Amino acid sequence: MKEHTEVTIYDIAKKLNLATSTISRALKDHHSISKKTIEKVKKTAEEMGYRPNNLAASLRSKKTKTIGVLLPTIEQPFLASLISGIEITAKKAGYNVIIVQSHDSYKGEVNLVQSLYNNRVSGIICSLAMETKDTSHFQLFIDSNTPLVFVDRVPKEEFNTYKVIIDNYNAGYKATKHLISQGCKRIAHLAAGSEFSIYYERKKGYLDALKEFNLPIEDELIVKLDGITLEEAARATNKLLDLKNPPDGIFAPGDILGVSAIQCAKKRGIKVPEDLAVIGFNNDPISQIIEPHLSTITNPGSKMGQASAEIILKTLKSKDKDEVKETRVLNTEVIIRESSKRK
Amino acid sequence: MKEHTEVTIYDIAKKLNLATSTISRALKDHHSISKKTIEKVKKTAEEMGYRPNNLAASLRSKKTKTIGVLLPTIEQPFLASLISGIEITAKKAGYNVIIVQSHDSYKGEVNLVQSLYNNRVSGIICSLAMETKDTSHFQLFIDSNTPLVFVDRVPKEEFNTYKVIIDNYNAGYKATKHLISQGCKRIAHLAAGSEFSIYYERKKGYLDALKEFNLPIEDELIVKLDGITLEEAARATNKLLDLKNPPDGIFAPGDILGVSAIQCAKKRGIKVPEDLAVIGFNNDPISQIIEPHLSTITNPGSKMGQASAEIILKTLKSKDKDEVKETRVLNTEVIIRESSKRK
Repeated sequence: MKEHTEVTIYDIAKKLNLATSTISRALKDHHSISKKTIEKVKKTAEEMGYRPNNLAASLRSKKTKTIGVLLPTIEQPFLASLISGIEITAKKAGYNVIIVQSHDSYKGEVNLVQSLYNNRVSGIICSLAMETKDTSHFQLFIDSNTPLVFVDRVPKEEFNTYKVIIDNYNAGYKATKHLISQGCKRIAHLAAGSEFSIYYERKKGYLDALKEFNLPIEDELIVKLDGITLEEAARATNKLLDLKNPPDGIFAPGDILGVSAIQCAKKRGIKVPEDLAVIGFNNDPISQIIEPHLSTITNPGSKMGQASAEIILKTLKSKDKDEVKETRVLNTEVIIRESSKRK
Repeated sequence: MKEHTEVTIYDIAKKLNLATSTISRALKDHHSISKKTIEKVKKTAEEMGYRPNNLAASLRSKKTKTIGVLLPTIEQPFLASLISGIEITAKKAGYNVIIVQSHDSYKGEVNLVQSLYNNRVSGIICSLAMETKDTSHFQLFIDSNTPLVFVDRVPKEEFNTYKVIIDNYNAGYKATKHLISQGCKRIAHLAAGSEFSIYYERKKGYLDALKEFNLPIEDELIVKLDGITLEEAARATNKLLDLKNPPDGIFAPGDILGVSAIQCAKKRGIKVPEDLAVIGFNNDPISQIIEPHLSTITNPGSKMGQASAEIILKTLKSKDKDEVKETRVLNTEVIIRESSKRK
């Protein structure tokens, strides 16, 4: 394998017997250089294998033309859509998107935040790890005027930066109200996440819908999950179906949970939706693979990604450093399918 | 928002009335500096908000401590597992992993290759875009001694670098032979990708299994797909089931395709596996959500990711620039489920 020696503008200058400043300007299409010279310089640069030194350039400008995306995971269809949305918007503006995963670990998130910061990304879009309660590790982006947008799983109100979210409380309320409208009288909930999470908001919506319609709020109908997995949801659903007075409806705050609940019920010979109506969340592809198809709440991942990237790009352009930060709240909808349609 | 000024070692030196070389060494725990001074310098650095300039450091060393991962998409469970495998291995060695997507576009891939190269990643792990036929854009990694591993969708043999793959030909052969063992006599195939792709290898395995058992190879039983989507597979399956002499088995070279084939058959009242046996590929979670559960071929994504990252790390350490490149071939297995079990 041959050893590679970096070609510099000095090498090009020497070869063409021109000043390095001429080479540098020609490579940037500077108006002071003739079209003919520009062509000659570019042709020679290409032949010699010259490549612009992005690191040096970004060191000078202190930022790279890259948006860093820090997510709990990339394995959820909702988050994959979110990334696609970011990429669509970023690419139009000539920005690269690099993606890193925290795997829902607080420590992992802190490390990745430091790494993205040290590498001077132009901006960062982040959805918090499930473990994260304290978000002070993001302060360095605020202090260094690096645009920061939280999306989906965002910190509590006191953190003054941009946010792109859905109204999780309202979505949980709508999901539960839909089950009520289908005649459910004992509605259970698979409770995920900590009190800092979007799942907590969905649960609050569930509780308020029950209150509004004078339906029972019982501890035994709310089963806490240790993770968003098929296995955890199966354990919780079996616990619910083992009750002396089992539920006739389940609000699962994720489609993977709703799918698992349907699978469990079917294994026990319980009819969905007649004996047990189920609604999920996210409108993942699996919601239309399970039978009966799973009712769900839309979660506009791609649109949220686009909105987040637009905010980064707008903030990078803006000269107003005292701009008022805003939270964009995108709408959700109930999608009614066979798993909950009883009327 | 306050304007942020970068704190340098000069600022720390000035504050402590020490030489900059002392500060620099203290921050690196150099043996020539007393423990007390090291502590004082680090404390002051932290208080002043100093952060090491990774870009400058990586400019000097010409490489960042980052592995770049370039994939067609991150939306497939198989590729998400592959990324997780890479991360497990990379993190142990203190490397960050950044992920970029080509969205199966040749042009997108060329741009991202250039960008990763210009940003001097330590190594690159790549699975080719569906559109890619010519892979000469990767030559710059070879020329600059940047470790390059192709994984899953790899270029033709003539490209001299490391590869981590499964034996797609053998897997296609095994899938088809399984259907034959279940009594299928007319086995159809959903054909994806170009003649450069892993899907082409799977198809060759299918054809050779049919030949071996003297079963009909008919053009009408091989339907070409325009993409790996539920919709395309539905179109193809309906075309097959509309035939005067329809198939009694389908080898779908992806689980999403197999799931779609089962959905189509069921909609038409065709019994799976009695009238139509189906086998997929990848062992994605959806294969156990569809009913009947889909038989499939394992595709060891996480192990492939780990192997790829190990090669990058080994090559970075190695001083032997003339090392012989190798191809690692990981094993696959047939998983038999209800969708094909007729005996």
